[in-house]
Amino acid sequence: MSHNGDNSRRLLVIRHGERCDFTFNQQGINWMKRAFDASGRYRPFDLNLPRNIPRRKDGYEKFAGDSPLTEMGYLQSKLTGRALRDHNVKVDYIYCSSALRCVQTAVGIVKGMDGRSLQLNIEPGLFEWTQWCRNGIPSWMRPDELENIGYPINTSYTPFMRLEDFKLKESLDEYYDRSYALIRKILKRHSQGTVLIVAHAASLDTITRQLCGGLPRNQDDFFYCIQQTPYLACSQAVEQPNKLWRIASSPIPPLTHASNTSYNSKILAMNYPQMGCDKGES
Amino acid sequence: MSHNGDNSRRLLVIRHGERCDFTFNQQGINWMKRAFDASGRYRPFDLNLPRNIPRRKDGYEKFAGDSPLTEMGYLQSKLTGRALRDHNVKVDYIYCSSALRCVQTAVGIVKGMDGRSLQLNIEPGLFEWTQWCRNGIPSWMRPDELENIGYPINTSYTPFMRLEDFKLKESLDEYYDRSYALIRKILKRHSQGTVLIVAHAASLDTITRQLCGGLPRNQDDFFYCIQQTPYLACSQAVEQPNKLWRIASSPIPPLTHASNTSYNSKILAMNYPQMGCDKGES
Repeated sequence: MSHNGDNSRRLLVIRHGERCDFTFNQQGINWMKRAFDASGRYRPFDLNLPRNIPRRKDGYEKFAGDSPLTEMGYLQSKLTGRALRDHNVKVDYIYCSSALRCVQTAVGIVKGMDGRSLQLNIEPGLFEWTQWCRNGIPSWMRPDELENIGYPINTSYTPFMRLEDFKLKESLDEYYDRSYALIRKILKRHSQGTVLIVAHAASLDTITRQLCGGLPRNQDDFFYCIQQTPYLACSQAVEQPNKLWRIASSPIPPLTHASNTSYNSKILAMNYPQMGCDKGES
Repeated sequence: MSHNGDNSRRLLVIRHGERCDFTFNQQGINWMKRAFDASGRYRPFDLNLPRNIPRRKDGYEKFAGDSPLTEMGYLQSKLTGRALRDHNVKVDYIYCSSALRCVQTAVGIVKGMDGRSLQLNIEPGLFEWTQWCRNGIPSWMRPDELENIGYPINTSYTPFMRLEDFKLKESLDEYYDRSYALIRKILKRHSQGTVLIVAHAASLDTITRQLCGGLPRNQDDFFYCIQQTPYLACSQAVEQPNKLWRIASSPIPPLTHASNTSYNSKILAMNYPQMGCDKGES
């Protein structure tokens, strides 16, 4: 029996949190060029960059194609996990994309839920549209590596899809079909309970669309959907007594916040009659 | 002796974090109308609203003029405290404005610093320009009330300025003069060490401006300064061997992050051939 008050299977699909690259790759400067020195030593230049960053066997350069979360992104994830708990949503199984930002988001959700018994099943098939992979499918951290840094990973999970199964530059229909085929396999494994998928902005639609009887979207509708999908957005699909699935509202409130810009105290030296700003200080 | 490696006195001035009213008073709707029912019962409608809100003796309606921090605002504060610790900035004394957002920010900074021995001196004289008080000086929570909810308050602190000392609609020069008079009194009490002031956007300038030999700004420069001052912005002034003070750079990095919009899963029901979004759900 599910823990949601009835027998229906439920599916939650949640987008990952704020990513370092989107936040700090501004004005043509890659965040990694500023955060890592030539020897790969990490020095965050902003309080929203993670204070510590995982060591990865494929080399720190791979963060360029596989961004970690920002501090805010991790908080967004914990707030979402806490909200699931507060709203009595009991998650039974978690599957997440191999992208580090999705793994870290799932870690934050589990932490926020205080879901000590939950382990993450890392499923490459949940990765986003391969049209966006200009340099091929990114290198991902391995499940045993993620477990070694303390994440609650199910290392005995055998993914439905392997790296060599990916088609590069799949059409939009092919991306919808891959997502639909995958969620059918995942749901076949669980005859009851609530399955949480942590993946990408498009996943909220691609994972639920055909399951609920829809057709793959055209590109215009697809891009409109993505643009309307903030970090930690949550979609829900519920199985009906007649075994058909339908979209329901998110079981938790939205997450809305303002941006913050970088402060430069040199503005205080503006129009000083006597002294300038001490640029050498600290 | 100061703990900053030399004998010089230092002054840090930090703006409070993200506030509920600025984030949620949108399109003419006051956040409190949505978050409190007629009996004053609090129900957050967004994950960035605080999960729990302090009880206040002057009535929950007073949050309208004295906004609490959002969840993001509290995280901004903790990240800033952690950064002060990481950069070996030892704070010896904390003074904060009576506004709840400033008190909560100071609480978060102390928490982030793990500054267990630090207590907050709540000083009404640090409140912002009274030109902005359309309905008079707001009602603030009392130090003993704030202590009762677990905040580290110095309840034996006697403020330099009392409510009845405020001049409503003070001129900009008067605001600068009030801030300068106050900081001189505070610094007179401490012959060494680092003093942290947690106050308002304008405070980064008004507290340091005349201390460093500047004249009060004209309105254009003043508003430009405020617009360039994000949440948790930090300015620093350092006393020179010749006893004059000068502006220095912030001892910690800036804090930059993106905004997040509210998600509405009804977009997923767009162009469904068979079924709509179940609006009654949850």
